[in-house]
Amino acid sequence: MTINGTTSNGKDRSQLIPFSSRLREGRALAQDVWSIFNAANLPADCINLGQGYMNFGPPEWIKSAAEEALNTVATNHYSHPKGRPRLREAIKAHYEPEFGRTLNADTEILVTSGANEGQYSVFVAFLEHRDEVIMFEPFFDQYLPSVTFNGGVPVYVPLHPPTAAGKQSSHEWSIDFDELRRAVTPRTKMIILNTPHNPVGKVFTRHELEQIAAIAEEHNLLVMSDEVYDSLVFDNEEHVRIATLPGMWDRTVTVGSAGKMFAATGWRVGWLIGPPSIIQPTLAATTRIVFCSNSPLQEASAAGLEQANKRGFLKKQLDEYAERRRILTAGFDQLGVKYTNPQGTYFVLLDISNLQWPDDYPFPESVLGRGRDFKACWFIAMEIGVSSIPVSEFYCEEHASIGEAYARFAFCKDFDTLKHAVERLQKLKQYLV
Amino acid sequence: MTINGTTSNGKDRSQLIPFSSRLREGRALAQDVWSIFNAANLPADCINLGQGYMNFGPPEWIKSAAEEALNTVATNHYSHPKGRPRLREAIKAHYEPEFGRTLNADTEILVTSGANEGQYSVFVAFLEHRDEVIMFEPFFDQYLPSVTFNGGVPVYVPLHPPTAAGKQSSHEWSIDFDELRRAVTPRTKMIILNTPHNPVGKVFTRHELEQIAAIAEEHNLLVMSDEVYDSLVFDNEEHVRIATLPGMWDRTVTVGSAGKMFAATGWRVGWLIGPPSIIQPTLAATTRIVFCSNSPLQEASAAGLEQANKRGFLKKQLDEYAERRRILTAGFDQLGVKYTNPQGTYFVLLDISNLQWPDDYPFPESVLGRGRDFKACWFIAMEIGVSSIPVSEFYCEEHASIGEAYARFAFCKDFDTLKHAVERLQKLKQYLV
Repeated sequence: MTINGTTSNGKDRSQLIPFSSRLREGRALAQDVWSIFNAANLPADCINLGQGYMNFGPPEWIKSAAEEALNTVATNHYSHPKGRPRLREAIKAHYEPEFGRTLNADTEILVTSGANEGQYSVFVAFLEHRDEVIMFEPFFDQYLPSVTFNGGVPVYVPLHPPTAAGKQSSHEWSIDFDELRRAVTPRTKMIILNTPHNPVGKVFTRHELEQIAAIAEEHNLLVMSDEVYDSLVFDNEEHVRIATLPGMWDRTVTVGSAGKMFAATGWRVGWLIGPPSIIQPTLAATTRIVFCSNSPLQEASAAGLEQANKRGFLKKQLDEYAERRRILTAGFDQLGVKYTNPQGTYFVLLDISNLQWPDDYPFPESVLGRGRDFKACWFIAMEIGVSSIPVSEFYCEEHASIGEAYARFAFCKDFDTLKHAVERLQKLKQYLV
Repeated sequence: MTINGTTSNGKDRSQLIPFSSRLREGRALAQDVWSIFNAANLPADCINLGQGYMNFGPPEWIKSAAEEALNTVATNHYSHPKGRPRLREAIKAHYEPEFGRTLNADTEILVTSGANEGQYSVFVAFLEHRDEVIMFEPFFDQYLPSVTFNGGVPVYVPLHPPTAAGKQSSHEWSIDFDELRRAVTPRTKMIILNTPHNPVGKVFTRHELEQIAAIAEEHNLLVMSDEVYDSLVFDNEEHVRIATLPGMWDRTVTVGSAGKMFAATGWRVGWLIGPPSIIQPTLAATTRIVFCSNSPLQEASAAGLEQANKRGFLKKQLDEYAERRRILTAGFDQLGVKYTNPQGTYFVLLDISNLQWPDDYPFPESVLGRGRDFKACWFIAMEIGVSSIPVSEFYCEEHASIGEAYARFAFCKDFDTLKHAVERLQKLKQYLV
């Protein structure tokens, strides 16, 4: 299905009513990477390490809470737009030690219909026409249209990849702070931070965050800190929350996700934590966008947060993810390829610069004319039977060549699937130059 | 919590980052009627006929489908932004006879995170800055800020109430078509229709819809037809869908709701039906706003639609709602007051013009300075113990005096609750003049 922007001339009824010009910006109408690399377009037995969802579900004890909610009348009906009191209390209890401060469950916590809708609501609540929003590349692809839909102008600052061979740490992806400072203009309103970072896996250091904070303070910027992978930080790395740095609470909204935390990406329960001056306007926005979030899965998420630490769930889950990372990266080590070992998230970036496919390989239309990484991911999916996501999609056009060197592999899959994928990936050897 | 729009001067940190000017329009920051008449502010034993949610839940067989989904890995994870294939197929099968046409589940049906988010997505997808949107008053209060957030300008056309005493039909609320025609300007982009109508209960007649359709055709307008109460049309009234009138399919998007249909307002599952030229841009919008809707309750809603007619559920539910309407309106008849008997929805408008409370009655701040209906609803809640919603909230300022004559009572409650409410309401007699 393609969109025909032609307005009615009395004959062409295919786009009788012209759609909004906002859809022409921010790649909103382009065929996105997710549909090109959708399982439906790939071989039936292709192992899906593309889109970041688990091939396992939430734990039984959380699902029981969902079932209990379904069997209670009130929890099948509207919730307060702020979120259900039980969930807000559970967020408060879980995050107070993380933030090192008392949180007011009524004014400083907001439940949203997934972290995605929470972020969209922040843009609705704060962006003025032509306000500039700084995002680090590679960026989570939803940021871009969400900013442009609300009149904002994206400004890109790349994370610079390391250059050494073999296994690299996500630490080594670095910000050029002069570049960041040059990106700030009088129209800059907001910086989007993402730590742990999708797709790099980088956990920003305290020193990096202090420098970002200083710039935000100096120019009175709002910081949206997307920390949806906060329960997936490996090797005892310190996950510093920028909201906890001196002076930063008042200008920071932190984003969290039940889907990432409890292996339930389809529940669409997320949350925002910040000062009333940010939460209240965002509540006004989300109330109009969705009115409220679904009630049964809010109750289940509350049970999750209430019991996650008591049951040792988050620790156990983290250990399992660390093992998943080990399985996948051991496969890359064996292959002798360059890749980024993530400190957080469930993504590994494989450097595909040395991959060479036959010149006459029959790529489909959707992949031709896109970056080299699109071809690499297509080739690996079709010939090796493992799907991944090309990383140039997470860059602006100007910087796309940085992303073209990488394919993103998600390791949020069970051990056997990952072992099977690693076996298959060994076949890449013959295509490495 | 109040919002302080003052920008930072280095001293005042209460609103360090100024929020978007769009929040200043469309009453987005005003204390809304739902929070004023929230159960928390009313006597503990007050019977809640205010907000329109049921005090009963969805049927067991639908909840079983939700539990089954929770116990399947894939249905805990992301759905396609268009909606789960099973639900789209179920919508197709249910609505094809209603629309009298074949529906393409891939291009003409879109699942959204509640009807509310579906409508919001249509505004995102189609409104251009300063586009005018015609809405009939009283209007569902979410339309207003959803339009202004996306740059639209609301234009109001009142439904004119009947003037006869006693029981009136919602039919008698009428459009002045000259007034509607005068409301159209070169900037008009869209008409929002709501049938069956909340809060009037009016089911628009074929003749009325034909006249609206003619105006939409003449001026090339998009029609958003909010039909979320389509399963609640009484007395064998014909519910005409404007999308089925000649030439209207191409310019109409019809809105439906699982919450209304299956007594699950907190599930946040709704849908849009329309031509690809409307569905595709709206998909681009909803994909960025929420990415996708929650998966387990989409599966449950699919089961609901698949089985609702086979099980005789919708017929039985309708009969029960008719009985609920009878109980409530019999109480008003006994009281001898003027009210609107709805042909559809679960709302009755009580004319409170003849209600007189003591001059020195102690009204709270939130109600003083608002319309006469706010005082009436407050008085009835506090003294009679039944809550309702003032109707002037659903009018623009200029036309608020029409709404001031009415209080909206919701009868989506079990029989005993309604009987109890009716008993209490008899005490109103002493305050009628």
